[in-house]
Amino acid sequence: MDNVGWMITETGFNPKKQHHHETIFTTGNGYLSTRGALEEGYPGDSRATFIHGVFDDVPIVVTEIANAPDWTEMDLVLAGERFSMAQGKILGYARSLDLRSGVLSRRLSWQSPLGKRWQLSFARFASLSDTHQMALHLEVSAAKGGGEVQVRAGLDGQPDNQGIKHWAWTAQETLEHSAWLQCSTRASKIELGMGMRLFAQSPAAITHSGWDVRAHPVLTAHTHLKEGQTASFDKLVVVYTRRDVAEPLTAVRVHLDRLKSFDWQAALTQQQKAWGEEWQRNDVVIEGDEEAQLAIRFNIFQLLIAAPRSDERVNIGAKTLSGFGYRGHSFWDTEIFMLPLFIYTRPEIARNLLSYRYHSLAGARRKAQANGFRGAQYPWESAGSGDEVTPTWVPHFADRNKMVRIWTGDIEVHISADVTFAILQYWHATGDDEFLRQRGAEIILDTARFWGSRVEWVAELDRYEVSDIIGPDEYHDHVDNNAFTNYLIRWHLQQAQQVLGWLEKVAPPEAARLKTELNLDAAELQRWQHVIEHIYCPYNPQTKLIEQFEGYFKCRDVDLETLEPRSKSVQELFGIEGAAETQVLKQPDVLMLLYLLPELYGEDVLRANYAYYTPRTDHTYGSSLGPSIQAIMACRMGDVQDAYTHCMRAASADLLDVRGNAGDGIHGASAGGMWQAVVFGFAGLKLNADGSHNLTPHLPKGWKRVAFQVVWHGKTIQVDVKGQA
Amino acid sequence: MDNVGWMITETGFNPKKQHHHETIFTTGNGYLSTRGALEEGYPGDSRATFIHGVFDDVPIVVTEIANAPDWTEMDLVLAGERFSMAQGKILGYARSLDLRSGVLSRRLSWQSPLGKRWQLSFARFASLSDTHQMALHLEVSAAKGGGEVQVRAGLDGQPDNQGIKHWAWTAQETLEHSAWLQCSTRASKIELGMGMRLFAQSPAAITHSGWDVRAHPVLTAHTHLKEGQTASFDKLVVVYTRRDVAEPLTAVRVHLDRLKSFDWQAALTQQQKAWGEEWQRNDVVIEGDEEAQLAIRFNIFQLLIAAPRSDERVNIGAKTLSGFGYRGHSFWDTEIFMLPLFIYTRPEIARNLLSYRYHSLAGARRKAQANGFRGAQYPWESAGSGDEVTPTWVPHFADRNKMVRIWTGDIEVHISADVTFAILQYWHATGDDEFLRQRGAEIILDTARFWGSRVEWVAELDRYEVSDIIGPDEYHDHVDNNAFTNYLIRWHLQQAQQVLGWLEKVAPPEAARLKTELNLDAAELQRWQHVIEHIYCPYNPQTKLIEQFEGYFKCRDVDLETLEPRSKSVQELFGIEGAAETQVLKQPDVLMLLYLLPELYGEDVLRANYAYYTPRTDHTYGSSLGPSIQAIMACRMGDVQDAYTHCMRAASADLLDVRGNAGDGIHGASAGGMWQAVVFGFAGLKLNADGSHNLTPHLPKGWKRVAFQVVWHGKTIQVDVKGQA
Repeated sequence: MDNVGWMITETGFNPKKQHHHETIFTTGNGYLSTRGALEEGYPGDSRATFIHGVFDDVPIVVTEIANAPDWTEMDLVLAGERFSMAQGKILGYARSLDLRSGVLSRRLSWQSPLGKRWQLSFARFASLSDTHQMALHLEVSAAKGGGEVQVRAGLDGQPDNQGIKHWAWTAQETLEHSAWLQCSTRASKIELGMGMRLFAQSPAAITHSGWDVRAHPVLTAHTHLKEGQTASFDKLVVVYTRRDVAEPLTAVRVHLDRLKSFDWQAALTQQQKAWGEEWQRNDVVIEGDEEAQLAIRFNIFQLLIAAPRSDERVNIGAKTLSGFGYRGHSFWDTEIFMLPLFIYTRPEIARNLLSYRYHSLAGARRKAQANGFRGAQYPWESAGSGDEVTPTWVPHFADRNKMVRIWTGDIEVHISADVTFAILQYWHATGDDEFLRQRGAEIILDTARFWGSRVEWVAELDRYEVSDIIGPDEYHDHVDNNAFTNYLIRWHLQQAQQVLGWLEKVAPPEAARLKTELNLDAAELQRWQHVIEHIYCPYNPQTKLIEQFEGYFKCRDVDLETLEPRSKSVQELFGIEGAAETQVLKQPDVLMLLYLLPELYGEDVLRANYAYYTPRTDHTYGSSLGPSIQAIMACRMGDVQDAYTHCMRAASADLLDVRGNAGDGIHGASAGGMWQAVVFGFAGLKLNADGSHNLTPHLPKGWKRVAFQVVWHGKTIQVDVKGQA
Repeated sequence: MDNVGWMITETGFNPKKQHHHETIFTTGNGYLSTRGALEEGYPGDSRATFIHGVFDDVPIVVTEIANAPDWTEMDLVLAGERFSMAQGKILGYARSLDLRSGVLSRRLSWQSPLGKRWQLSFARFASLSDTHQMALHLEVSAAKGGGEVQVRAGLDGQPDNQGIKHWAWTAQETLEHSAWLQCSTRASKIELGMGMRLFAQSPAAITHSGWDVRAHPVLTAHTHLKEGQTASFDKLVVVYTRRDVAEPLTAVRVHLDRLKSFDWQAALTQQQKAWGEEWQRNDVVIEGDEEAQLAIRFNIFQLLIAAPRSDERVNIGAKTLSGFGYRGHSFWDTEIFMLPLFIYTRPEIARNLLSYRYHSLAGARRKAQANGFRGAQYPWESAGSGDEVTPTWVPHFADRNKMVRIWTGDIEVHISADVTFAILQYWHATGDDEFLRQRGAEIILDTARFWGSRVEWVAELDRYEVSDIIGPDEYHDHVDNNAFTNYLIRWHLQQAQQVLGWLEKVAPPEAARLKTELNLDAAELQRWQHVIEHIYCPYNPQTKLIEQFEGYFKCRDVDLETLEPRSKSVQELFGIEGAAETQVLKQPDVLMLLYLLPELYGEDVLRANYAYYTPRTDHTYGSSLGPSIQAIMACRMGDVQDAYTHCMRAASADLLDVRGNAGDGIHGASAGGMWQAVVFGFAGLKLNADGSHNLTPHLPKGWKRVAFQVVWHGKTIQVDVKGQA
């Protein structure tokens, strides 16, 4: 296979872009992910390994995914000089992530401060076929000079989350060729075991030893290389936590016992095979546009390594498992932006992600109850337990006397409908009746109960309203009757009625059980119907416009063009209150509604709202969630080149760091959104309820071919669309 | 010398009291202090070394003194078993801190899980004669069994402040017998170098090696002991920071080069000699009351090791250098409670502490300016720069949706007068005219300017008021016309006039310079006079009572007796607002005023206020600052046994942990207050302006003798008071 379209490569190391590139070079396997920090360390690096579900308490921001003990550490002392890219000279350098195998490699030629020259080649991966195992391969060649080569492979048990330590050391053992470490998160008390073996091959004798330093066991190998000679070293690491097994340390030791020998090439072949099978189902081919080709695969890869393959009690964080941003918390980003990729190509993973919401129903019920509502109210930010973990107050970035109140956890309520949307999307695609019966229905019905208690009856207007909330467009908070939310509530209650009807038909005992448990009596069901008929869903038949929220049209209209060129969001330019007084959107809100529920109105309404809202949206520095959806809607409007611009903005959020914050981790929603833009936008795939599908391609200039596959009603649809020559 | 009265001892190790005892067993030398955590570690320990002035940024609470790399780490593997007091059996155990030498020792007999028995003896100290050097001595005896003995002496470069990491590693070197480590605080970029040597003596051969683990260099020594044999190990550590020298690492290496051999006994002798000289000046003898004898020496010792001997840009934190409480920040606790000990026994140290306020004038001026005032307004909490570092918002301990606003940094303003009080107390004691001329006058005059701009003219009452502040009694905040503050302002302005007059006489050029620089024009000086004549200083000639603040007498009167027995403060019982509505005081406020300024009123007024406020004060769980002052006032009223109760409450704040928070560090104000209670209360020492003194002893029952010395007007006064037989 050709490398083109598969390799993320850097040819020079730029310390200023260190954090951005650590994010890009994240590798993983759905159990854990590791940022692409250098094995030997670099001043100011932000090294991290995140294991799904390993959350620990933290002041102010509640809980965060704990940076796990660092398995990548590999120090090198070459003829008495400690190797560091910050010292000596780098005479040649290339680093690349091979998306076909998930292997991160680095090759370089280092001239030491004392003038010796060494060729170094690092490669590492987290095994996809055995997700508790990671491998690191190092080759050292004496290009000029030679001398003693000392390799030190460590497990650093005191990593931190940007200065916050989460681990308490409990025990360890360091032998000559192997070592293990046991520790626990400080507050959540999740026990972790990590073990390693170090193998070495050299033309000269090799001495092994173990440095049993508290919380930081190290295995060393010494050898001697003459000029022209090469030695190689393999570090194998295994990790388990109490979330996986009852006795993580025992699992580590048993696993280590199995690894008495190691063949890097064989392991690599196995890894390539596992990823090859993965790509069979997930690959999206874009011919004629190398940038888009690489970007779509990169984004798919990053979602695949963040998605839990065998754990249905975790979810994907907004920044996947690749950075400290949003602390591993999950948002609607998963259900609305990332999930479709999995629903249509890896439904088993989609099922895990949706099951997470089932297992976290208790937290959603606690949230509803704490707020005085019935049923289940999903948290805006969700972590281990499903309780609301959005920070409520954060320090003002500039003025330490001020705290900023974060309201999303209190009033951005649409997520409860978003989860239902995702469940039904999954069900329609897969026909997984068992999931709907056992888990999905309970979620849909209990969140419907929440809506039934959340809406407000306004007698004088003879309608239900929903006041004081935040819709998808977060530039405007504390708004009333956000169209996206109100329409989705109505739709959600309708779906709940249908799901209940379906359940009563196909599984009467389950239906009866749920009706009892959730107290779905006649009054409740009548209320749903009353809400469906009376909830205020704004629409003006004259203008065909849907007002984003009540009073939006009275906000100040700002011509965004006049602000160009800019490198800041409209909120940064105008301030939080200032931006809220304008009509400028952080992301398309009404268009998002029309994307999710296309059956609501005809094309004329879509066109009117597209024309109105598009120029009023902060596409460049607003929400990273916007561009992909904007791209799809632009395709539907026939604005293919605009669509392309929006899509590539989503595509390059991380690769090109267009928002300047890729160092915090992958923009998961952007990644998933790009996949939707290609599939449902440019390829114009439409999946019909009867199992059939249509294609209305709108390929951008230069795109010669788009090919991918999706699973619909249990059958694989091969899409292969050709562009203009 | 007899051990009685000099040894702080524990005879059993109680993990539940671990943090409390770590505080008590803090050792140090005025450059750094180290908590008494076990060398080999213990689950849940709170190990820390604090070096004066090494502050680093931290979210929310602004800045904190960074826990320095751990120099005490000493791991032991005995015949293959890792030594830990959490495993095996402890057959005998004693730990003691010898106040005569500042040496912390631990002797124990350990039966290992496999049944071997080892006698272990640890001892360590921070050198008083060479403050950059620390020594740790370990003796290992094979009592039953014997086998290989492995000692691992580490420098842990990744310590944390209760989960917050402050250090970024930069470099290190590990040889066979020595190692060094270089790192920097993450935000404040204070470079630190630490180095060590390990010496070993054994009847058998010894193998040394170095484990060069990143950020955690370790020196090991292996030997073999047969039953009955003993080996000894000495770990010598040196440390410098960029605050001390331009190149800390060079200083470390030069210092290590000097230490090619080491004799523990000789070092111990030197240390005893240095401390012996210290005690010549500081000791307070109390005969007839072993508890009080030990407590006074313990408290003096803890202040001595926290006081900067050669650095005039640092101050003593409220919790000295012994714990994480208040994060190393300094309060008025230094000037009013701790400083007298130094003024009267170690004026060189008092000068350093007062010079800190001079060097931090810029921060005080920034604070005044930011608040719209003239002159210098000292911060309520002060750290490296002298800027205000009181946190403004802290999370509510129980409800994460709430933040609690801390107001002391905004409105507890009396500290600016307290600093002036301390300067004049120092000057009167020492006659250090040069200090007053060069530094003190500028502080006194510029804080006077602050008062001139802070007071509020109320035309209809023809008086100045000071509204919306907090006095010493923090149960009542946002009060108007706090008597303590208003009286001190008047006194401060009077002193400023006199100091300016004095300066104009003795040093006309300095006076002229200051008048120009501080803009002390005729209008300013007239304003001072006007404030002196018109500031509202509450006093009721009928009742002879001073109302603590305006409206205090209208607050609800609570009979504290009816709340007994209790183990919580009145604020905890009634809530913040609830306590504020009562007349209950956190600490004596008016009595504090009458202590500092006894010349204000005659004994009748003191008696009336003592009678009124004493029963309304939360002596047991209010402020730890209260009891010592209450003790002095009780002495003056002749309530000697009450005074003794109060004094012992101050004395045992840490030794007996009577407030349950000694784990956070030594109560420095309590320690300094106890000294004042003994000297100015029980011994009844009165120092007169003409250089003479009087003694009016009020010794508690059982006290046979109190003896100490103070320096007054440059002459040493030997006080030796005998009690009743």
